[in-house]
Amino acid sequence: MFRKPVSRRDMLRLAGASGVGLLLGGSGAFGIMAATGATKQPASDKPGSPDNVTTGIPDANRYDFYGQHQSGITTPSQNFMCFASFDLTVSDAAGLKSLLQAWTRASASLMAGELLDGQNENLNLPPADTGEAAGLTPSRITITFGAGPSLFDHRFGLAGKKPAGFGDLPPFNGDNLMPEWCGGDLGVQICADDMQVAFHGMRNLIRIARGSAVLRWSQEGFQRSTESDPNKATPRNLMGFKDGTANPSVQDAAMMNEVVWVQPEDGAGWMTGGSYMAVRRIRMRIEVWDRSSLSDQENTFGRYRVSGAPLGSQHEFDRGDMEAKDASGKPVIPMNSHMRVARGDGKMQILRRPYSYSSGMDNTTGQLDAGLFFISYQRSLEKQFIPMQQRLAQIDALNEYIQHIGSATFACFPGVRQGGYIGDTLL
Amino acid sequence: MFRKPVSRRDMLRLAGASGVGLLLGGSGAFGIMAATGATKQPASDKPGSPDNVTTGIPDANRYDFYGQHQSGITTPSQNFMCFASFDLTVSDAAGLKSLLQAWTRASASLMAGELLDGQNENLNLPPADTGEAAGLTPSRITITFGAGPSLFDHRFGLAGKKPAGFGDLPPFNGDNLMPEWCGGDLGVQICADDMQVAFHGMRNLIRIARGSAVLRWSQEGFQRSTESDPNKATPRNLMGFKDGTANPSVQDAAMMNEVVWVQPEDGAGWMTGGSYMAVRRIRMRIEVWDRSSLSDQENTFGRYRVSGAPLGSQHEFDRGDMEAKDASGKPVIPMNSHMRVARGDGKMQILRRPYSYSSGMDNTTGQLDAGLFFISYQRSLEKQFIPMQQRLAQIDALNEYIQHIGSATFACFPGVRQGGYIGDTLL
Ligand code: HEM
Ligand code: HEM
Repeated sequence: MFRKPVSRRDMLRLAGASGVGLLLGGSGAFGIMAATGATKQPASDKPGSPDNVTTGIPDANRYDFYGQHQSGITTPSQNFMCFASFDLTVSDAAGLKSLLQAWTRASASLMAGELLDGQNENLNLPPADTGEAAGLTPSRITITFGAGPSLFDHRFGLAGKKPAGFGDLPPFNGDNLMPEWCGGDLGVQICADDMQVAFHGMRNLIRIARGSAVLRWSQEGFQRSTESDPNKATPRNLMGFKDGTANPSVQDAAMMNEVVWVQPEDGAGWMTGGSYMAVRRIRMRIEVWDRSSLSDQENTFGRYRVSGAPLGSQHEFDRGDMEAKDASGKPVIPMNSHMRVARGDGKMQILRRPYSYSSGMDNTTGQLDAGLFFISYQRSLEKQFIPMQQRLAQIDALNEYIQHIGSATFACFPGVRQGGYIGDTLL
Repeated sequence: MFRKPVSRRDMLRLAGASGVGLLLGGSGAFGIMAATGATKQPASDKPGSPDNVTTGIPDANRYDFYGQHQSGITTPSQNFMCFASFDLTVSDAAGLKSLLQAWTRASASLMAGELLDGQNENLNLPPADTGEAAGLTPSRITITFGAGPSLFDHRFGLAGKKPAGFGDLPPFNGDNLMPEWCGGDLGVQICADDMQVAFHGMRNLIRIARGSAVLRWSQEGFQRSTESDPNKATPRNLMGFKDGTANPSVQDAAMMNEVVWVQPEDGAGWMTGGSYMAVRRIRMRIEVWDRSSLSDQENTFGRYRVSGAPLGSQHEFDRGDMEAKDASGKPVIPMNSHMRVARGDGKMQILRRPYSYSSGMDNTTGQLDAGLFFISYQRSLEKQFIPMQQRLAQIDALNEYIQHIGSATFACFPGVRQGGYIGDTLL
């Protein structure tokens, strides 16, 4: 009685009257998209670029699941993240494959903003979709999958395919890693401009994994929401500094090939077009930081707090003069400043894609458990992330104010072609 | 060198070029606001209504700190929440008073979107503001303070002022309370449309409290963000159901006086214009819920999942026919459905203002620690919340899927007049 199943797509369409800019026109642009096979277009170098073609709306709110690369890597950071690390409970390649296939189907639906399994509203069954994102836009959700080093142990017959140099990160000076924040057979980064949409994605992937994989750990993250930032400026981390300034440009395809995307010559052919993800859960000693002087804080990063410019420079995006000395002959950008040490000789870069986290109070210390959920993408952990973090762990002035408590690495698969499934180049 | 202190206000103004709808015009509307004393207007029955007067922008993004009532109670729910419960370490009324005064100053600045202590950028001192919200709009932040029952013990000479009937909640059937999620001398609810702005508020209040109070527990919460909801519909909780439908209307001032605001005849004169807050951290057994059939889910709440209408009714805001029987003579809205049991005879209402929470994985169970951070406001805990929760705890069908693991109550002070401070009617 009065029951009329309504899909998430219908709900968006029904909202047409409100005239919000995100709406997609009478007959349902998602439907058109699927029907015309727009997603079957040749893979481009702009992975996961918002689909403006069918909507004609500049500020479209969804990315394609299919493409040469996975989305969520060079995609501009959305406002929120849910990260889930899984351990497999199936113990053969067939079980792994059907999980990845099920996740593929679900991810394509989630990214299109469709209810999982569409109209299924059988009263006697659990709903196919948990429903908390019904009526919401896709909110630029991206879902990015990677294989942890443990996936290449004896269980799945994949030992021979483990990329040379891929493994858990080595111990670094000052590490205080807690096992409950480390590792995992599979890692999934889910980002969206809406926290509830991101949560919905994570929760349904967990649900679909039931019987095949269990959650090992998970973490929510945030940054300022774009709506609250009239400047559309570089977001600030919880230390109050702009974070992301010196990142290589994701618009620069050649640069991304150099820094982020695994190339044919890198070996492990199944990873070509993929990327290695480094994850560090880095807690900030907020109370200590908050008691340090502005000058200490700026010297720690080697940048001005307000403008984000390198010390001695005027504009945020100035590269900074590494040779400049002050009146007393000391380097204006301190030798142990985070920027200087991270940059090193500037030859090796990474693409950082971190989120702030705040996980309530730590009962053992009475302090906020908050900080940076650091994620970076690179072609090689060995050549890029590891030497950089080795330098930082030794001398970074920031070490006084942070502690690395979680660590994981994932080999993020290349993108999926229509008809394929995530990880199909490996299996 | 190149240092030019820039206030958060300046930053907003500097952003003028981008022409975003939230901007406030050339000379800085916040300044005008302070100068004309607009906040000194006679207290109105529309507490914390967005200040449209000075900006002329319908969708203004800030609320007044000063007013007859505290904001954050009848204020439409913002998208995010940070809740902090504190225990005092000072042990006399003077110490308590100066904390409340310092919090008052900070809250007025935070709600105006100003940097704490304005232009203070002394290199040799810790910055007065932690900076992570610099350049962001006020994002409709509200900060709502309340006194826990323990504030009325021997320490502050306030025992005689404890309102009759105010105290910790009694034990309820099925409670599984964990001490680390219960109680507190002072509770602060910080809500904003931006998570980083809310976090910034909480973190600075914690910082200002140093030496006077310590954090006892804290929790972040979210709901769908308004930008992602073209329907501007009732938000859904993590069970996928619309949550808030039958709430009394915050626009109805007479209703709010009846349900929410403490009246002179209620005794404890210092609470007149205030409200009692009930807090329950309610974990959802998401996995069990996700395996229950659609019919079980709808019978649990007594409402349809998609539309939110009461079972047997057509529209979300229909009241529902409590007498209706199905062909077999069973009530269409089950006797133990959450809606029916919560409503009771309909004479006693509360104002619910909950947020969803997701706090990663619970290491003891391997399940997500996610659910509803339930907050409600009412004139009397004894007459409104407690009998309702007693009924629910006994027979609510929802109990199969939830567990109450945290509990707190706070007597939320009336609003503050210019020149006053939060809690001044008590001290
Ligand atoms: C809580 C931990 C961290 C914080 C708060 C932090 C913050 C910052 C900030 C504020 C900057 C300057 C602005 C910018 O270019 O983004 C920066 C730069 C940078 N950080 Fe970090 N960072 C952290 C950890 C790390 C880690 C673990 C790595 C890699 C191992 C890293 C690598 C870099 C790099 C490569 C740069 C750019 C350096 C350049 O100017 O060339 N950071 N970081
Ligand atoms: C996880 C816990 C809870 C969930 C998921 C939940 C969810 C809901 C939902 C979906 C509705 C129907 C739509 C609406 O009117 O908002 C509702 C109604 C209601 N709930 Fe809850 N609720 C929870 C806990 C509580 C608690 C602890 C109380 C108070 C003790 C409460 C009091 C009410 C009231 C008064 C109504 C309106 C009943 C009416 O129709 O008159 N709820 N709740």
